Amino acid sequence: MSEEREPIRVGVLGARGRMGVEVCKAVDAVDDLELVAMIDQGDWLFNASDAGAEVVVDFTNPDVVMDHLHWCIDQGINCVVGTSGFTEQRLERVRSWLQHKPEVGVVVAPNFGVGAVLMMEFAARAARYFESVEIIEQHHPAKVDAPSGTATHTARVVAEARAAAGLAAMPDATKDEVPGARGADLDGVRVHSVRAAGLVAHQEILFGTVGETLTIRHDSYDRASFMPGVLLAIRQVIQRPGLTVGLAPLLDR
Amino acid sequence: MSEEREPIRVGVLGARGRMGVEVCKAVDAVDDLELVAMIDQGDWLFNASDAGAEVVVDFTNPDVVMDHLHWCIDQGINCVVGTSGFTEQRLERVRSWLQHKPEVGVVVAPNFGVGAVLMMEFAARAARYFESVEIIEQHHPAKVDAPSGTATHTARVVAEARAAAGLAAMPDATKDEVPGARGADLDGVRVHSVRAAGLVAHQEILFGTVGETLTIRHDSYDRASFMPGVLLAIRQVIQRPGLTVGLAPLLDR
Amino acid sequence: MSEEREPIRVGVLGARGRMGVEVCKAVDAVDDLELVAMIDQGDWLFNASDAGAEVVVDFTNPDVVMDHLHWCIDQGINCVVGTSGFTEQRLERVRSWLQHKPEVGVVVAPNFGVGAVLMMEFAARAARYFESVEIIEQHHPAKVDAPSGTATHTARVVAEARAAAGLAAMPDATKDEVPGARGADLDGVRVHSVRAAGLVAHQEILFGTVGETLTIRHDSYDRASFMPGVLLAIRQVIQRPGLTVGLAPLLDR
Amino acid sequence: MSEEREPIRVGVLGARGRMGVEVCKAVDAVDDLELVAMIDQGDWLFNASDAGAEVVVDFTNPDVVMDHLHWCIDQGINCVVGTSGFTEQRLERVRSWLQHKPEVGVVVAPNFGVGAVLMMEFAARAARYFESVEIIEQHHPAKVDAPSGTATHTARVVAEARAAAGLAAMPDATKDEVPGARGADLDGVRVHSVRAAGLVAHQEILFGTVGETLTIRHDSYDRASFMPGVLLAIRQVIQRPGLTVGLAPLLDR
Repeated sequence: MSEEREPIRVGVLGARGRMGVEVCKAVDAVDDLELVAMIDQGDWLFNASDAGAEVVVDFTNPDVVMDHLHWCIDQGINCVVGTSGFTEQRLERVRSWLQHKPEVGVVVAPNFGVGAVLMMEFAARAARYFESVEIIEQHHPAKVDAPSGTATHTARVVAEARAAAGLAAMPDATKDEVPGARGADLDGVRVHSVRAAGLVAHQEILFGTVGETLTIRHDSYDRASFMPGVLLAIRQVIQRPGLTVGLAPLLDR
Repeated sequence: MSEEREPIRVGVLGARGRMGVEVCKAVDAVDDLELVAMIDQGDWLFNASDAGAEVVVDFTNPDVVMDHLHWCIDQGINCVVGTSGFTEQRLERVRSWLQHKPEVGVVVAPNFGVGAVLMMEFAARAARYFESVEIIEQHHPAKVDAPSGTATHTARVVAEARAAAGLAAMPDATKDEVPGARGADLDGVRVHSVRAAGLVAHQEILFGTVGETLTIRHDSYDRASFMPGVLLAIRQVIQRPGLTVGLAPLLDR
Repeated sequence: MSEEREPIRVGVLGARGRMGVEVCKAVDAVDDLELVAMIDQGDWLFNASDAGAEVVVDFTNPDVVMDHLHWCIDQGINCVVGTSGFTEQRLERVRSWLQHKPEVGVVVAPNFGVGAVLMMEFAARAARYFESVEIIEQHHPAKVDAPSGTATHTARVVAEARAAAGLAAMPDATKDEVPGARGADLDGVRVHSVRAAGLVAHQEILFGTVGETLTIRHDSYDRASFMPGVLLAIRQVIQRPGLTVGLAPLLDR
Repeated sequence: MSEEREPIRVGVLGARGRMGVEVCKAVDAVDDLELVAMIDQGDWLFNASDAGAEVVVDFTNPDVVMDHLHWCIDQGINCVVGTSGFTEQRLERVRSWLQHKPEVGVVVAPNFGVGAVLMMEFAARAARYFESVEIIEQHHPAKVDAPSGTATHTARVVAEARAAAGLAAMPDATKDEVPGARGADLDGVRVHSVRAAGLVAHQEILFGTVGETLTIRHDSYDRASFMPGVLLAIRQVIQRPGLTVGLAPLLDR
């Protein structure tokens, strides 16, 4: 895997936050990465450059992340960003900064769960081959939105793949429905949101054609599950100049 | 199990119908039952009595089933009935006929699937011990009603058990819902109806409490699955004078 | 449910252990119980009696639990015990102590997970009605034994129920088997042990008969899941003089 | 999708066999294909050429399929072959025949289930991103081999993908194992074979990494499920000169 090189030197911004703590542990646990700076509120950013960080990982908050990014790009430090709030406008701003530093790489991803990203990719791939598809997402009862963001995104991806393949509407003879039984209709794809104590975060995509079904299910229990995706991004960002949005392109090989 | 006795002599009404054919095959395949009469439209009912049938199985239709029952009870022949359309009124009529023949047994069941009956029983049993419960039923897309009859019945059974145990409403923080996402509300129990090509008839009941979930799932593929229930009813009806409604009482031991 | 009475006064032994901490939190969180003593190594047992504890919960260790129990019974304090290591001999000793204090109740349970107990009960109930049954248990890869203790116990319970019902051996035409493919044979019941990163503790019991399957699945993520069972035991032990082994009898109503 | 052209003219060899009957029905049911010849034992092959068949579908048997193929290629008729028994030697023979007819296309596939093919593709894709993977296949109890051919193939594909990515062995602390509990070891991948009445043909591939699992499940109930794959092959073979092995390449776009 690893052509012999020195460990990649990594700094973590937001190092005392919930995700930052996990990132520090994960970086520390592998041989090909070295944790050289842990920075949080009140610390100086240039601790990262002083420590010779090649990659900075940012799990902070939307108010400060743009300043962090601007500074890192300026310093020629590659960035892996999990902080939320990246609108198309913000991404455009990052791209313009990168024009002046074409050798720097930035990965911005809303979700570092490899399983979730693969689930989405498989859903897009399978969609064109099945007459029917429905999504069942299951979460803890403290969740405020239904369907979940991931389910909404999956429905869109699936609907686009079906449209591109010229598929007809799904068969559905339902005439006599208690309101809500058939779930939410997102772009023609039915999504069902289950909420129950004991659940964490789960999603199932069911594809069916006469005589067979194919089910893709993702169960996520712990933010530790995001770490393989973060490590993957750290290893790749130093070889990917420019802006990369989402984890999917990093898996494309 | 079987105290040595002669095989039970069985007649089948509606012997050429879809269910009747299966019943004939199933009776024929076991040693402790003997198929003595196969009767369908145009045949004489008294073929059953002439053949010495001790039990008659009726999978015919609502228009004729009451005549069949009246005649069988009169002849002192026990009955196992899977024909649909039994209202409380009809059941009352059967009870009144049986008063004159107290030694005769009649079993009327809307569903002879042992798995479905056990699922229902387990659901009633588990309901009081979990904070949350939701039902997900999955059927082929030609189904007209949503939720299914079984799911509706399950929801009622579960809601009653929760009420009897004095449970509070389930936790659910949903504020931002795309209409239908959270399913149909049946007596406070959420039911989700999935319809897809490739599915047959499936139901899942999910119970959850902090840190654990218990799931009961029933998958039914084939009307052959009703046969163990029919055979069970045949074996028991000769020892159960009076009217028995549903398969559940026959499993109670 | 709750006839108006004062909250039950509860003391916890092993209050700083992993389970003890959870018990203290759980007792504290409900209105009908009052946490009056938290006792750990180095504290005096009679803090519990001084505080007027009606029930003592013991999650300590096998070396000291018998002394605790002897003392509590002597003091007339009811006990709920989750500490492991209870052989038949030890249970016999507890019974003999209770003869002198017939009004005291003791509940000793190896597992306070209500879901697991119900799963076992349902398995025993369903076993006699299906031709086939197999067990699939799934755990984290740090687990040393395969199958799990719960799966082994389930297999025994299922095998006994099948034997009692006079069922024949399960159908299985396997002739050409890669060693291990068909799982472990426990009393004629096949058990499959899956081990994978990301799993916690899961078990599935699959019952099948021609045309249908019934599946009972338990997923357990967190020791918080044992708390409902502990609370149930606390509430019931004050009305159950004598020794009760296992949680099942407390659910029997 | 379909640029306006005349329906593709299709002949079916083995038209009275179990699969052949399904193929005839499936071809007949769509507008862009026309069933022009149904040929079985005792019929002349040249009925197909006389009827102007552009594609011949062959579900016959290993003894005769090579003669059929030779004749069709000679006649310039494209072939879709589901008959089993194709060794590398036989495939080489077909390739040599095709050299003389470079415009003819032949698709030979051991499995026309699109779901199964996608499952395999997804498994190969996901394998490198997860620490652990296990396979659970579930079939009816009349099956002779364990694991199934599909599971064996999946294990090989997964093992190769892990090796190519340089993954370490999976974590597994099992020390105390009842023989068989951990399944069969195929190239380092554990495979569990469940056999139960009521099952048809099912397979689950479980991928896990700390904090998350990704599951791909395929349920197949009916040979009708192979028809979308057969139709896909018919539509593509006329544009794919040369030999194509397996359905996967036809899905690659």
